[in-house]
Amino acid sequence: MFLTRTEYDRGVNTFSPEGRLFQVEYAIEAIKLGSTAIGIKTKEGVVLAVEKRITSPLLEPSSVEKIMEIDDHIGCAMSGLIADARTLVEHARVETQNHRFSYGEPMTVESTTQALCDLALRFGEGDEESMSRPFGVSLLIAGHDENGPSLYYTDPSGTFWQCNAKAIGSGSEGADSSLQEQFNKDITLKEAETIALSILKQVMEEKVTPNNVDIAKVSPTYHLYTPSEVEAVISRL
Amino acid sequence: MFLTRTEYDRGVNTFSPEGRLFQVEYAIEAIKLGSTAIGIKTKEGVVLAVEKRITSPLLEPSSVEKIMEIDDHIGCAMSGLIADARTLVEHARVETQNHRFSYGEPMTVESTTQALCDLALRFGEGDEESMSRPFGVSLLIAGHDENGPSLYYTDPSGTFWQCNAKAIGSGSEGADSSLQEQFNKDITLKEAETIALSILKQVMEEKVTPNNVDIAKVSPTYHLYTPSEVEAVISRL
Amino acid sequence: MFLTRTEYDRGVNTFSPEGRLFQVEYAIEAIKLGSTAIGIKTKEGVVLAVEKRITSPLLEPSSVEKIMEIDDHIGCAMSGLIADARTLVEHARVETQNHRFSYGEPMTVESTTQALCDLALRFGEGDEESMSRPFGVSLLIAGHDENGPSLYYTDPSGTFWQCNAKAIGSGSEGADSSLQEQFNKDITLKEAETIALSILKQVMEEKVTPNNVDIAKVSPTYHLYTPSEVEAVISRL
Amino acid sequence: MFLTRTEYDRGVNTFSPEGRLFQVEYAIEAIKLGSTAIGIKTKEGVVLAVEKRITSPLLEPSSVEKIMEIDDHIGCAMSGLIADARTLVEHARVETQNHRFSYGEPMTVESTTQALCDLALRFGEGDEESMSRPFGVSLLIAGHDENGPSLYYTDPSGTFWQCNAKAIGSGSEGADSSLQEQFNKDITLKEAETIALSILKQVMEEKVTPNNVDIAKVSPTYHLYTPSEVEAVISRL
Amino acid sequence: MFLTRTEYDRGVNTFSPEGRLFQVEYAIEAIKLGSTAIGIKTKEGVVLAVEKRITSPLLEPSSVEKIMEIDDHIGCAMSGLIADARTLVEHARVETQNHRFSYGEPMTVESTTQALCDLALRFGEGDEESMSRPFGVSLLIAGHDENGPSLYYTDPSGTFWQCNAKAIGSGSEGADSSLQEQFNKDITLKEAETIALSILKQVMEEKVTPNNVDIAKVSPTYHLYTPSEVEAVISRL
Amino acid sequence: MFLTRTEYDRGVNTFSPEGRLFQVEYAIEAIKLGSTAIGIKTKEGVVLAVEKRITSPLLEPSSVEKIMEIDDHIGCAMSGLIADARTLVEHARVETQNHRFSYGEPMTVESTTQALCDLALRFGEGDEESMSRPFGVSLLIAGHDENGPSLYYTDPSGTFWQCNAKAIGSGSEGADSSLQEQFNKDITLKEAETIALSILKQVMEEKVTPNNVDIAKVSPTYHLYTPSEVEAVISRL
Amino acid sequence: MFLTRTEYDRGVNTFSPEGRLFQVEYAIEAIKLGSTAIGIKTKEGVVLAVEKRITSPLLEPSSVEKIMEIDDHIGCAMSGLIADARTLVEHARVETQNHRFSYGEPMTVESTTQALCDLALRFGEGDEESMSRPFGVSLLIAGHDENGPSLYYTDPSGTFWQCNAKAIGSGSEGADSSLQEQFNKDITLKEAETIALSILKQVMEEKVTPNNVDIAKVSPTYHLYTPSEVEAVISRL
Repeated sequence: MFLTRTEYDRGVNTFSPEGRLFQVEYAIEAIKLGSTAIGIKTKEGVVLAVEKRITSPLLEPSSVEKIMEIDDHIGCAMSGLIADARTLVEHARVETQNHRFSYGEPMTVESTTQALCDLALRFGEGDEESMSRPFGVSLLIAGHDENGPSLYYTDPSGTFWQCNAKAIGSGSEGADSSLQEQFNKDITLKEAETIALSILKQVMEEKVTPNNVDIAKVSPTYHLYTPSEVEAVISRL
Repeated sequence: MFLTRTEYDRGVNTFSPEGRLFQVEYAIEAIKLGSTAIGIKTKEGVVLAVEKRITSPLLEPSSVEKIMEIDDHIGCAMSGLIADARTLVEHARVETQNHRFSYGEPMTVESTTQALCDLALRFGEGDEESMSRPFGVSLLIAGHDENGPSLYYTDPSGTFWQCNAKAIGSGSEGADSSLQEQFNKDITLKEAETIALSILKQVMEEKVTPNNVDIAKVSPTYHLYTPSEVEAVISRL
Repeated sequence: MFLTRTEYDRGVNTFSPEGRLFQVEYAIEAIKLGSTAIGIKTKEGVVLAVEKRITSPLLEPSSVEKIMEIDDHIGCAMSGLIADARTLVEHARVETQNHRFSYGEPMTVESTTQALCDLALRFGEGDEESMSRPFGVSLLIAGHDENGPSLYYTDPSGTFWQCNAKAIGSGSEGADSSLQEQFNKDITLKEAETIALSILKQVMEEKVTPNNVDIAKVSPTYHLYTPSEVEAVISRL
Repeated sequence: MFLTRTEYDRGVNTFSPEGRLFQVEYAIEAIKLGSTAIGIKTKEGVVLAVEKRITSPLLEPSSVEKIMEIDDHIGCAMSGLIADARTLVEHARVETQNHRFSYGEPMTVESTTQALCDLALRFGEGDEESMSRPFGVSLLIAGHDENGPSLYYTDPSGTFWQCNAKAIGSGSEGADSSLQEQFNKDITLKEAETIALSILKQVMEEKVTPNNVDIAKVSPTYHLYTPSEVEAVISRL
Repeated sequence: MFLTRTEYDRGVNTFSPEGRLFQVEYAIEAIKLGSTAIGIKTKEGVVLAVEKRITSPLLEPSSVEKIMEIDDHIGCAMSGLIADARTLVEHARVETQNHRFSYGEPMTVESTTQALCDLALRFGEGDEESMSRPFGVSLLIAGHDENGPSLYYTDPSGTFWQCNAKAIGSGSEGADSSLQEQFNKDITLKEAETIALSILKQVMEEKVTPNNVDIAKVSPTYHLYTPSEVEAVISRL
Repeated sequence: MFLTRTEYDRGVNTFSPEGRLFQVEYAIEAIKLGSTAIGIKTKEGVVLAVEKRITSPLLEPSSVEKIMEIDDHIGCAMSGLIADARTLVEHARVETQNHRFSYGEPMTVESTTQALCDLALRFGEGDEESMSRPFGVSLLIAGHDENGPSLYYTDPSGTFWQCNAKAIGSGSEGADSSLQEQFNKDITLKEAETIALSILKQVMEEKVTPNNVDIAKVSPTYHLYTPSEVEAVISRL
Repeated sequence: MFLTRTEYDRGVNTFSPEGRLFQVEYAIEAIKLGSTAIGIKTKEGVVLAVEKRITSPLLEPSSVEKIMEIDDHIGCAMSGLIADARTLVEHARVETQNHRFSYGEPMTVESTTQALCDLALRFGEGDEESMSRPFGVSLLIAGHDENGPSLYYTDPSGTFWQCNAKAIGSGSEGADSSLQEQFNKDITLKEAETIALSILKQVMEEKVTPNNVDIAKVSPTYHLYTPSEVEAVISRL
């Protein structure tokens, strides 16, 4: 079985006899090795929470950025290859800035997500903007626009879905189950913070501290929690 | 037998000794893994109905778009790789807009379909617009122009056919048989809605709800049914 | 023997030790899988007749186009990959239109055929107009110009021949024998219609109807027979 | 032995350890599969004669062109892949026309031959004019310029030689021997016609008729014999 | 195990089935063969110290540059392939100079690091600035800007982290442990010099002399220690 | 042994583990298959003599050009692939003409040789002027400039040497030994003619005639001997 | 062991699992096959001495150039592939001339060396200036600028070092040991000449003569010794 598979999986962009694109599936595996990230949408806004793997006490925790701002009204959490994510985020920042400049209004969250996925889809095409392999990263994109709060989930195939709540990364399977149990559409943003962090706590192997998790919200603008704001959420668990 | 085949099937655009293009055939396999979509043409207009696979209760059903508008008078249902379909639809939207702008009239449904297939055919050519592999998607293109309503079916080889009714995706074999039994040229649009949904119901593994199916019509303009309009059709089954 | 062959036949444009181009030979195999088409030249004009494989009763027979107009005075019948044929025909249409525009007169049938074959020959060259593999299609090109009626036959190698009568596709072997028996230079166009259809009838597995065959003539302009005109020919058999 | 050879012969333009270019040698094999062509130079001018393989009685013999005019004062006979030959001839026609336009005088036969060979040599270079494989064709180029009549022979390596008489194609070995026996520098053009056709007759498997051979001369301008002129030569045998 | 791995690790930019990029991992191995470098951040500034492998007494020690200035306020220590590092440093110098010229102020340390990593990430893309393989080098980037002193660590994947202290190269494992024991945020720059050199001494196989180590600080401007300044630090050990 | 070698020798421009470039070495083999050429420098000028392989009595001996003029003051003899040599000579002719036009004086023999070798070295680079494989030819370049007469020898690696006398091609080994015995710096041009032809006679398998050898001198201008001049040298043997 | 290695060493620019670049290592092997060259720096200037392999008595010794001038104040000795070295030297000559023209002063020796190494590093990048494989050559670059005399050593990886004395080529191992024994910083230029030639004598297999060695100095300008100057040094041994 495996031998047959290897005949097809090294061509960056080649279908297998069963109609599968293995390089995209392997990039998805790269994400399963990544740290866990969780997003929850409420009527008040969207909460993002991520695990930060601080491999050495000498590392500056704030430099391990797994939640990044795209524009005033959009932020994203990531899992997988950080350098790939930075390229995507940088591309999205340029797109949203250009949109503001050209149209005098913020880009919608869906258009921003679509722009990210267009770039992700075009790997292996050899043009200037695209990568020669799939981007090994999944994003949770939180935003707020004329349609209110929204949460998008993207994967390396360049596909995206809108969600009420979603977990990505190594702990995503368990986290998704917990989210389905605990989420309902009427929770407050504060409750969402607590749910996100309590689920993250379950999947992390160490004690949760302001050093090894990051929390952000878009409500209606992007805000990355300070260590003391994170501490406050931890204390509510 | 299989070993001999593998000698030829990885070159993206190479004939086998029997004159086959395996990468195109494998892309067609990708569609057999996709969700089922059905199109039916009536004298009043065309109906499209698709199964939506909602893999998690936390997913926003409306964000799983398997029916999309191309222009006022053209819509399409898809099965296969969604990101590939979005690229094709985006290309068709630009083409129809350019046509309106240049000629002051809507592009015909056949020209739009041809434009989509031209792009699909040119995979592996290395130019800017084309993909490096076949598009892994089939489309049912419903439209209404000076020739009245029409329904087109495209496959990854860049070939298209005009149909009275057609099913694509994992349940297409059974659905096509049912369509041949139930379709005749004199059915009303309303009857077409019922036939499409009842056949979809047979091939789906779960109960049909406004959450896991989408219906649209072009009659003479594109309209995506609201949940309550879908509910109304369901209640007629 | 076969193993040795496979060493050479995957390079798109590579000679084997015996001086053969296997990819071109395999493309020719693709045509042997195609539906049968027949062309007969008479002093009054040229008749083209093709088998249409209607795989489903829900397919619109008129959308299975196996005979296409290139210009007022030129039409062609095809066998093999339909999408490839459309690309060639589209190229020929542009060439003939340009010729009319530049010189104020129709392009000759031979020049049109040469233009098609130039494109077919250049596969694998990587330039903008050419394909990355041979075109998997044969054409019967019927036309009428200052030299009177003419019939050309092209194959995937980019070679063309002028013929009095010719069959291509899966039934071509038997059909060619029948043509040699029944053709002579003095038959009328009406007799050519009957011969073409009666031979097509022999090689088709189902009953001949206006739905599953198409007939066209260039005499001196291109005309695709209406269903009732086809019916009239059928009734003469 | 053969296995070792196959290690080198698929790279289009790669030396083997013995310093050989196998793809060029294989292209030369393609010519050994081709029909026979003969050229003879006399003081009065040059005669070209070719075998035409009419595979079907329905084929128009005049459309099987194996002798083509390049310019008023140059013609050529070919053996091998006809579509390749047409590309070379078309290139030579453009070159000779440009030369007339730029310098107001005909291009010499040697310069024309050199221009053809430059194109043939550059295969695999990837630039716009060249092929991605060697041209699978040999040419006998007959011409008449300020130096009097001349006959050139080219092969797929891009090399050319000037000859008094030469045969190419499947019957070339026997034909070359006969030419060496029968040729001397003082034969008349009429004698050359007879010699060329009688040798062609020996290597052809069927009876020689105006349908299956072509004769042309450059003396001092290019002239392709009409069927009755060919008949006259046949009658002299 | 190893055999399976080799199926994936030669494509410069291809995922393995487990979602790994082997060429990047192998480039990281190249760094483990390199000489050791250490960086320590204090409130007063950042110290960099490197081992210089002087393979011959005839080598000019000052020409073995393992610490280089990027701009007045930024310097870096390197381990791995020196020629690769020079390319990155040269790129960073141009970027910082352009920034000063365009904005009239120094580039921040993080932006400079990001610019270096953008170039490192794009290997295999084929554009003009990037390499065809990963850069086989890690950098410790020391700088001082409006946010005070900072120390960044980059690896061949194009990822970077901010650190308080960090060791790279062949001795990095042992050196990192020692750094964790001896570092605290309140040490002086002078203490950092001593710690860095004493740890370097442990991992080097020969006696530490001004010839085989280099020390530099950014406090707040870049300064490479003279041999006598290095001697002074050695004498404090 | 041979198997290991084949791992490296097909990449056009790849080093083997022993630091060898096999494709260049194989191109040198191509020259060992070529006809023999000899060059001798005297104080009066340089003599070139080549064997011409006349494979058929019908070939025009004067069209087998193995000695060619580059400019008034430079000529060259060649061994190996004639079509490759023609490309190099044509390049050199353009260079020397450009030099005369730009500077109003002839190009030196060394600069001309360097220009040829620059082109030869750049094989496999993919730019417009270069070949995709090494040039399979060696040249003996004879010239006369402000430094007096000179003789250069080039090989497929793009390297050149200045010589007093040199033989290339299939008989070069024996011919070089004879040259070392018979050459001294004080021989006259007439003696050089005799030595060159007598050595050529030893390595040729047939009787030397004006038909199967060519002789040229540069003294101080290029002159290709007429058949009667060659006959005169032969008669002196 | 060897088998595993061959999996990685043919990709021109690919890391092995141990982080090695085999093609660069193999290019270094090419230098070990080359003739020996020695450089010695003194306070008065730098001496370069090379072995010239005169393979035939008919070769012009002065045309075997292994020491070349780059600019008035810079010269270099080479070992490895001579044609590669010529390309590098030609590049350096253009760079130093451009520098003089742009800035009105000579380029420093280090900048010149860096420019050479930049070109060497970029092999396999596909841009216009670079080679498709590593340059198979090492250089000893001797110069004199505002910092006094200097000697640089470059290898195929694009790395360079400053040295007091250095040997390259087939005899470099023994020669380097001798240099370490005999070199001290206070030797005169005259003593350096004697040391260089006496060491060269040890590693050469034949008697040292003005024909088979070359000597040059930069003190402060480049000078290549005449045969009689070389003879004078030989007589001092």
